[in-house]
Amino acid sequence: MDYLKGRKVLLSAALSVFLIGPLSAEGVSLSQLQTGLDTVWVLLAAFLVFFMQAGFGMVEAGFIRSKNATNILTKNFLDFCMASIGFFVFGYALMFGTGSAFAGFSGFFMIDAKSGADVPLWAFWLFQAAFCGAAATIVAGGMAERMKFKAYLVYSFLISAFIYPIVGHWVWGGGWLSSLNFADFAGSAVVHTTGGVAALIGTIILKPRTGKYRPDGTVKMISGHNIPLASLGVFILWFGWFGFNPGSTLSVGDGSLISLVAINTNLAAAAGGILAMIMVWAITGKPDLSMALNGALAGLVAITAPCAFVSPWSSILIGAVGGVMVVLASLLLDKLKIDDPVGAFPVHGVNGIWGTLAVGLFGRQALGLSSEGLFFGGGFKVLGVQSLGVFSIAAFVLVAMGTIFIIIDKTIGLRASLEEEYLGLDIGEHGLESYSGFQIVE
Amino acid sequence: MDYLKGRKVLLSAALSVFLIGPLSAEGVSLSQLQTGLDTVWVLLAAFLVFFMQAGFGMVEAGFIRSKNATNILTKNFLDFCMASIGFFVFGYALMFGTGSAFAGFSGFFMIDAKSGADVPLWAFWLFQAAFCGAAATIVAGGMAERMKFKAYLVYSFLISAFIYPIVGHWVWGGGWLSSLNFADFAGSAVVHTTGGVAALIGTIILKPRTGKYRPDGTVKMISGHNIPLASLGVFILWFGWFGFNPGSTLSVGDGSLISLVAINTNLAAAAGGILAMIMVWAITGKPDLSMALNGALAGLVAITAPCAFVSPWSSILIGAVGGVMVVLASLLLDKLKIDDPVGAFPVHGVNGIWGTLAVGLFGRQALGLSSEGLFFGGGFKVLGVQSLGVFSIAAFVLVAMGTIFIIIDKTIGLRASLEEEYLGLDIGEHGLESYSGFQIVE
Amino acid sequence: MDYLKGRKVLLSAALSVFLIGPLSAEGVSLSQLQTGLDTVWVLLAAFLVFFMQAGFGMVEAGFIRSKNATNILTKNFLDFCMASIGFFVFGYALMFGTGSAFAGFSGFFMIDAKSGADVPLWAFWLFQAAFCGAAATIVAGGMAERMKFKAYLVYSFLISAFIYPIVGHWVWGGGWLSSLNFADFAGSAVVHTTGGVAALIGTIILKPRTGKYRPDGTVKMISGHNIPLASLGVFILWFGWFGFNPGSTLSVGDGSLISLVAINTNLAAAAGGILAMIMVWAITGKPDLSMALNGALAGLVAITAPCAFVSPWSSILIGAVGGVMVVLASLLLDKLKIDDPVGAFPVHGVNGIWGTLAVGLFGRQALGLSSEGLFFGGGFKVLGVQSLGVFSIAAFVLVAMGTIFIIIDKTIGLRASLEEEYLGLDIGEHGLESYSGFQIVE
Repeated sequence: MDYLKGRKVLLSAALSVFLIGPLSAEGVSLSQLQTGLDTVWVLLAAFLVFFMQAGFGMVEAGFIRSKNATNILTKNFLDFCMASIGFFVFGYALMFGTGSAFAGFSGFFMIDAKSGADVPLWAFWLFQAAFCGAAATIVAGGMAERMKFKAYLVYSFLISAFIYPIVGHWVWGGGWLSSLNFADFAGSAVVHTTGGVAALIGTIILKPRTGKYRPDGTVKMISGHNIPLASLGVFILWFGWFGFNPGSTLSVGDGSLISLVAINTNLAAAAGGILAMIMVWAITGKPDLSMALNGALAGLVAITAPCAFVSPWSSILIGAVGGVMVVLASLLLDKLKIDDPVGAFPVHGVNGIWGTLAVGLFGRQALGLSSEGLFFGGGFKVLGVQSLGVFSIAAFVLVAMGTIFIIIDKTIGLRASLEEEYLGLDIGEHGLESYSGFQIVE
Repeated sequence: MDYLKGRKVLLSAALSVFLIGPLSAEGVSLSQLQTGLDTVWVLLAAFLVFFMQAGFGMVEAGFIRSKNATNILTKNFLDFCMASIGFFVFGYALMFGTGSAFAGFSGFFMIDAKSGADVPLWAFWLFQAAFCGAAATIVAGGMAERMKFKAYLVYSFLISAFIYPIVGHWVWGGGWLSSLNFADFAGSAVVHTTGGVAALIGTIILKPRTGKYRPDGTVKMISGHNIPLASLGVFILWFGWFGFNPGSTLSVGDGSLISLVAINTNLAAAAGGILAMIMVWAITGKPDLSMALNGALAGLVAITAPCAFVSPWSSILIGAVGGVMVVLASLLLDKLKIDDPVGAFPVHGVNGIWGTLAVGLFGRQALGLSSEGLFFGGGFKVLGVQSLGVFSIAAFVLVAMGTIFIIIDKTIGLRASLEEEYLGLDIGEHGLESYSGFQIVE
Repeated sequence: MDYLKGRKVLLSAALSVFLIGPLSAEGVSLSQLQTGLDTVWVLLAAFLVFFMQAGFGMVEAGFIRSKNATNILTKNFLDFCMASIGFFVFGYALMFGTGSAFAGFSGFFMIDAKSGADVPLWAFWLFQAAFCGAAATIVAGGMAERMKFKAYLVYSFLISAFIYPIVGHWVWGGGWLSSLNFADFAGSAVVHTTGGVAALIGTIILKPRTGKYRPDGTVKMISGHNIPLASLGVFILWFGWFGFNPGSTLSVGDGSLISLVAINTNLAAAAGGILAMIMVWAITGKPDLSMALNGALAGLVAITAPCAFVSPWSSILIGAVGGVMVVLASLLLDKLKIDDPVGAFPVHGVNGIWGTLAVGLFGRQALGLSSEGLFFGGGFKVLGVQSLGVFSIAAFVLVAMGTIFIIIDKTIGLRASLEEEYLGLDIGEHGLESYSGFQIVE
């Protein structure tokens, strides 16, 4: 068997470099094995978080009209491509480099960059890059069906190379929120509040889809074109979230923490799905699947910050509240005539904020938090820091992305032409139909 | 790097609690590392089994008409949500609690519940909960396109919170079949026979879809609306089955057992797919993809009980027989005018029974079975116990679920109105179209 | 808890067989744990590579017309089934058996077969079998929409049972290219050049789809019928590639190599996607998603050989060149009136060759290569061997598969009838519509 030829050389070289602790007959040490296991875990998680990109794409495409499906998928796909390169060149340095309380400033182009965990730099990078891709993609959903593709490329690059990494530095890179013991285990604030708030300001500046709000004040229901696809997307997202949250441990330990995070993630999603269905059933008289799907996503977003700091029962409550809030927030946006086609702000913005605050309500000191949460006798200490943190992040994103969107609008233009919007962006922007051959009317 | 701040505390606390065996320089012991690896394995498997829910959804939706796709996906989705909560509150206690030979009775609400394996309780729970979700979902397929949504919610909760856990207790929770050395490694009996038999009695009580069997005795072919979606679903299920079966080892050991289970799973699926295609080609003159897909599923279901007890060559045979039987059983159901739209009973019921019996035919003592199978000189000893077990399970489910369905039928009603069935349950029950904008005729 | 009953016996038996090194309290040795971890890694990778089959299916189906979608999915599905059985009976023996420089010749039917890595045979087999399935599937795309199903079954079996394993033996089984230190880490040459060149000769012999090239010399654009499905397929392929490349390490070590391979895989894909979009935008004036998707696949194919031997920056360059080449090659094929409906040759053939050569340009000795690549001062030494290897493989496949296709054409016939092509192969060959109920025009 020469199968391993060129590789054996490499592996034994690596072994000799990393020799630590006692060796067995085969020459592998306990601590090496531990690093190996942790790396497998972090890579598995990174793969799953990468796959969430497919989930976002299918949900966003399924919930909009068929004439814009290819457009949103193009955005979603290039998003991740650009986030990969942008995070390699700039993002990682701003997020994890040594620098100020505001931003890192070393390791550009990954030169002399260092890993932020006890796993090899490249594994840590891949996990973080996949997170970065998610933040950018969330925005696309809220601005779907009427944004110029070029405008998208510009802001998508800016958010993944600069905005997200700066917020990330505050919390995970040793920045000012980290110094205050702000706790966001896997990113309710860093990823979802950032993405959700950017989607909100984007959709406000972009204005509603033509015809969505009629002159007489009524709202036109614009149905998603492919509910099975959206449903698949939510399953993929839930599946990928098992990388997002449990993977954020960045190490396996004795398995107890990753198990807790995994069950909490699952229970919050389930509770969110059920409660959203009950709510929408009570309000509209029909158990609307699209709302139940968003309810599960809401539960997932909400548990993302507290997943390592709370008990399973608390997770059920956190998810359930998330499911209720996503329904109410969706209805509220329509009242305010803010047109968010896939519910990006209700899911990621509202529940990103809710999940971050929930740490201050349900968090436990025994699970590593600096102090007990409000409901466990710790008073407002944690809740105060959580509030400060998540609203600072929201404010920063609102101002930064608002400025970026306005500049784009004044220069290359943010909104597609009325004709393109009418024909669909698939034909207008990409010269491609999503479903060639199918008879489609609207 | 403050990335790990709040977590390091937690991990070292966990370390100090679980200190066993000699420590390396970094302070992690060999046995801790082993538990960590086993936990990663069980969690990975749990994630994959969770993802099977998407597979079931896509297969079931793809094989029925578009007007009922959202309905089945709603069932499929809420299924898992409800199974998660129901298994947390009741199911786990009934299945793995200490109690009688019939059911466990400790650990309700997971209070003082204990893990059934050498991994943390929450990891074990998540793996088992995902199994529980599968059992409920199987039923939905057989009763598709004409069942009331409310009725579904009721029985789906009952099967996942009570019926499945009781059967599970018999085999995996220390119940009476466990005492007899009944061998069902990953659930041909516990999951698939339970789900398949429930689907059979459900579809009989529910009666055929309107128009399926014409007054003149002929059968109307009702085609699935999206074969690519169904095909994707089967790939997802096959993928997820690599968690279902190999994950049932619940530990990694030296890797030899998990490797055997994985290859057996794959070979049985492949043989089932090929044989089903050959059979349907011979009978109908056309290589029908939907039958080949169900053949692979049949092979997967059949190998689920014996996967750890048989050789790869036996697995090929077991899967091949499964592929033949799924075709014959599907034809037989149509002869009996039992309308099972997606083949839930042929796939899960017939092959669940076949796989459980196959342990008694092909099983090997060297692989951990209490005695050799019939084909290896062990006589009818194992086969007898397997028969007793699987038919007891089938009988219990038939009676219990039959009773539940009849009670539901007499109270809230099991069957959707004729008008709803005609319009489609998507509009009737959920007020939502699956494919808004597409021209669809029937 | 009797959950583990029958299994514990088995595991402890296995333990006693493999006892090596010092034991902890629980009785597991360090080296056993290492094998366990490596096995989990290889199996995880095998599962991911298996899942790529779904990705291939969705991409190929999405990029062709709806009337042939079920046909390509049937091919894709049975492919993997047949490859599983064929590789079990013949393929593994030819590839990894001891034998000559040309082919292995021991271990037929897996009798006395040996593992090619430090993981159990069955885990190694599963990983290799999934690779084998990929090679066969690639071919289907290039010959889509007009090939007879029976013809497909024959050549698909031959390529997976004989052609691919022989090429594999040359490089990974101790054959003549292995002796020359030819370096193909994960299969740019072995899998993708083989598949891509077979697709090229197949599509040439099969001739273009009727109507594709008009008598006046113009080319008819035949659009794919489901871009969201194709897009999902590419995400699944990218996801699965994280098994394909990093899994090819076949062991975890201290995690540094698998991390490098994973990031390189990701960066090449991202760069390929971006560059292909820029190219097609510059040439046609529209950012065509289907080309961007193929660009990412091109980057993935290109990085497959060099992924362990090059730096992340080199990976970005290799992927970027791949993205440019897939666009140019697609345009060139149309100029030559070679009709490759999904771009199988531009993606897998052209970039398989490019990636194999790239090892000779960007490869580093410090990463295990026999000598530095051309761009790092090693001269033409590596590049020469890489050229010899990849062109030998291409020539062998061209001749062998060309012969097979011609023999099939003269006997059972390669091409479907004009009537079947017009009606669609779904109805003609399988008696099944892909989208029953949908109004479809062409």
